[in-house]
Amino acid sequence: MSNLLIKCMAVLTMTGEDGIIHRGEIAIRGGEICHVGASGSTPGDFKADRILDCPGMVAMPGLVNCHTHAAMTMLRGYADDMPLMQWLKEKIWPMEDHLTAEDIYQGTLLSCAEMIKGGTTTFVDMYFEMEQVARAVEESGLRAVLSRGMAGFGPNAEKAMRENIELVEKWNGRAGGRITVRFGPHAPYTCPPDYLKRVIEEAKRLGVGIHIHLAETLDEINEISEKYDKSPIRLMEETGLFELPVLAAHCVHVDDKDIEILARRKVGIAHNPQSNMKLASGIAPVSRMLEAGATVGLGTDGASSNNNLDLLEEVRTAAFLQKLSTGDASVLPAYQVLSMATAGGAKALGLEEQIGCIKPGYKADMILFDMHKPHLYPLYDIYAQIAYAALSSDVATVIIDGQIVMENRRILTLDEEAVMQAAGRSAKALVERKNASQKNK
Amino acid sequence: MSNLLIKCMAVLTMTGEDGIIHRGEIAIRGGEICHVGASGSTPGDFKADRILDCPGMVAMPGLVNCHTHAAMTMLRGYADDMPLMQWLKEKIWPMEDHLTAEDIYQGTLLSCAEMIKGGTTTFVDMYFEMEQVARAVEESGLRAVLSRGMAGFGPNAEKAMRENIELVEKWNGRAGGRITVRFGPHAPYTCPPDYLKRVIEEAKRLGVGIHIHLAETLDEINEISEKYDKSPIRLMEETGLFELPVLAAHCVHVDDKDIEILARRKVGIAHNPQSNMKLASGIAPVSRMLEAGATVGLGTDGASSNNNLDLLEEVRTAAFLQKLSTGDASVLPAYQVLSMATAGGAKALGLEEQIGCIKPGYKADMILFDMHKPHLYPLYDIYAQIAYAALSSDVATVIIDGQIVMENRRILTLDEEAVMQAAGRSAKALVERKNASQKNK
Repeated sequence: MSNLLIKCMAVLTMTGEDGIIHRGEIAIRGGEICHVGASGSTPGDFKADRILDCPGMVAMPGLVNCHTHAAMTMLRGYADDMPLMQWLKEKIWPMEDHLTAEDIYQGTLLSCAEMIKGGTTTFVDMYFEMEQVARAVEESGLRAVLSRGMAGFGPNAEKAMRENIELVEKWNGRAGGRITVRFGPHAPYTCPPDYLKRVIEEAKRLGVGIHIHLAETLDEINEISEKYDKSPIRLMEETGLFELPVLAAHCVHVDDKDIEILARRKVGIAHNPQSNMKLASGIAPVSRMLEAGATVGLGTDGASSNNNLDLLEEVRTAAFLQKLSTGDASVLPAYQVLSMATAGGAKALGLEEQIGCIKPGYKADMILFDMHKPHLYPLYDIYAQIAYAALSSDVATVIIDGQIVMENRRILTLDEEAVMQAAGRSAKALVERKNASQKNK
Repeated sequence: MSNLLIKCMAVLTMTGEDGIIHRGEIAIRGGEICHVGASGSTPGDFKADRILDCPGMVAMPGLVNCHTHAAMTMLRGYADDMPLMQWLKEKIWPMEDHLTAEDIYQGTLLSCAEMIKGGTTTFVDMYFEMEQVARAVEESGLRAVLSRGMAGFGPNAEKAMRENIELVEKWNGRAGGRITVRFGPHAPYTCPPDYLKRVIEEAKRLGVGIHIHLAETLDEINEISEKYDKSPIRLMEETGLFELPVLAAHCVHVDDKDIEILARRKVGIAHNPQSNMKLASGIAPVSRMLEAGATVGLGTDGASSNNNLDLLEEVRTAAFLQKLSTGDASVLPAYQVLSMATAGGAKALGLEEQIGCIKPGYKADMILFDMHKPHLYPLYDIYAQIAYAALSSDVATVIIDGQIVMENRRILTLDEEAVMQAAGRSAKALVERKNASQKNK
């Protein structure tokens, strides 16, 4: 790993709204940031092996995608515009039954390529065949928090538990520390309290956290309320889940008491505005959550309910959706929503002392926006420009753990062409297998 | 103008959901489409001067941006995250007072560059110094519907009327027919009925249509209701506005009776979902409007309330917002929302027999999407891929009126670099003028 010096138009440190360094530079040594300051401020004893001189670019921490199912890019656009349960039962689940380990590997590689090109440096995944996901993460150079999605009933409950334990044992802390593993109990309505208690026990034993879907739809609220006479959040509180570090995806349907619990128990919330809109799930009360002191990051969810993994779109949508739903154009301003996509996301994953900011001692995870585009002129306010006007395709260069993973839009860790071709072939074979099995029925 | 033959992966004709021609080709002669069909189907007597062979691209009609204030890119990101009236009074209007004709020209050129790069081939504008806007449109090669924004009271009421009349006389039908002019009475709350009646008279005399803001905010509804005891739509109906071809921007706050009027009077509705979200205006009931037979196109509104002119973002946001607001994930599916951005927009402008579809006899306004990107793999459904996963930066090539305006992301009609630099300089001088005038107060 070489010593890197980045010189750019501005550094958004994301350590505070005034943390903009115009004509700034960042020195990176051994995967870590060792200096951030104005042009020329890097100590003389820092010997750069390489200088990235980017006078037309803005550096900021890499984006953190707090919730996705990466391999589902394999089903991108396979079925859309359908009511949730019909979509799952008739389309998504039958296709998932035919996904092979190889499909999951190829689908995740494709997602990694897409996320790198969109400026995401860390993502949180929940799926199956997670060994394949870990392989793809290791190759791509991304940072990731991985969990095996577990349903607590049916024939796969024990298998999933075993696989998540193995995933922790084999992959937690691997890929030079870029991979963290959590347990992935799917949701309160698929994991009964007894099963969850066993998950909690195992997670405590292994010293890892939890990634779960919580309070996504009204159907879930109704089902949990009928069964347990309480909200999903309160059920999880009683089950003891929040004694562990928890990342809860969605939290769309939550009341003030739920929000108080989420804030007090320091639960990380992954807000997925486009998925919640596309599936007609609802609007998470993000501005109330933030007011209550809760930690909120942003996620894309899987590509079949989005249909891309573009976190910058989520930034814009999150801000606009809160303005709309509160009737107040001043809520969730540009800096705050960009903070959710970086420092906030890092905190939601319990990685706030490692990533999400550009400051000495932090991991060198950062992106460079090329501001030399018609839609980014003129430039009055960098936060507003990136939050409200920029496209993910304006990200020119991506650095993760000190490694240049993309430079001037070219991915250096993966063969982008081969990844696309392989994903296309996998998808074709997948459809053929599914069609053949239908004929056999 | 040369004869062009385009060969591509697929042609989305947008003449109907089944109007996909896989491995298609389009022949263009003299600015018009003369043939569309499968590969090899072009009649032998068509002599192409140039063949665009694009096996990895999808052709579709150019996007129609039904409502913007192009020169407001000059204020992009100048003020955000504020309540509407405070934002207008303290920030936008004081800056607009200092805009010169040159600023408007440069800001519009910048917008034209941005729109071309995002796949927009026709836009609808309302602003002042419209002569400058017309010049920029003529140079850029875009198609546009222009109107002078008119407030019906205050010292500028007569000046605005006179300027709109001159704009019609001088520019309607100009730029090889690419420019159409309408009258631009700003809104019911800024244009009293007597003034509107004079506008209607002039528009009838000159044989042109109207472009107006209607039912954008609840404040407007309350103000009009207090003054006239009816909704803005009903007030316009009574004033006789709908006897003319009308393009009404927003229509956020409308009831069933309003929708019935809009549909019956064939008013074109410009839906601006991101602006309506960012300004916390509300959600237009687009799916009910479409059910009632109304004509709806999409717009970005000005860059200061968006903050870009990216119509493909509006496509995605429009679809997701209707799913969310109706609670039904099946409403406004991919084809329908893409149709709003093309054929629907054309109809909203009364240009449905000239643009919005790829078919013989229509103007050759079309765009080519480069599908060879990680976020566009694998490919199951082209409509869903473009509506829900593509970025405006995936548009590789843009043809307007038979002219190749952008090829492989390079604009051929404008010097993009010079346009950006000039816009940057104009913005800097604008801020200096404004600051100087504040000191003098």
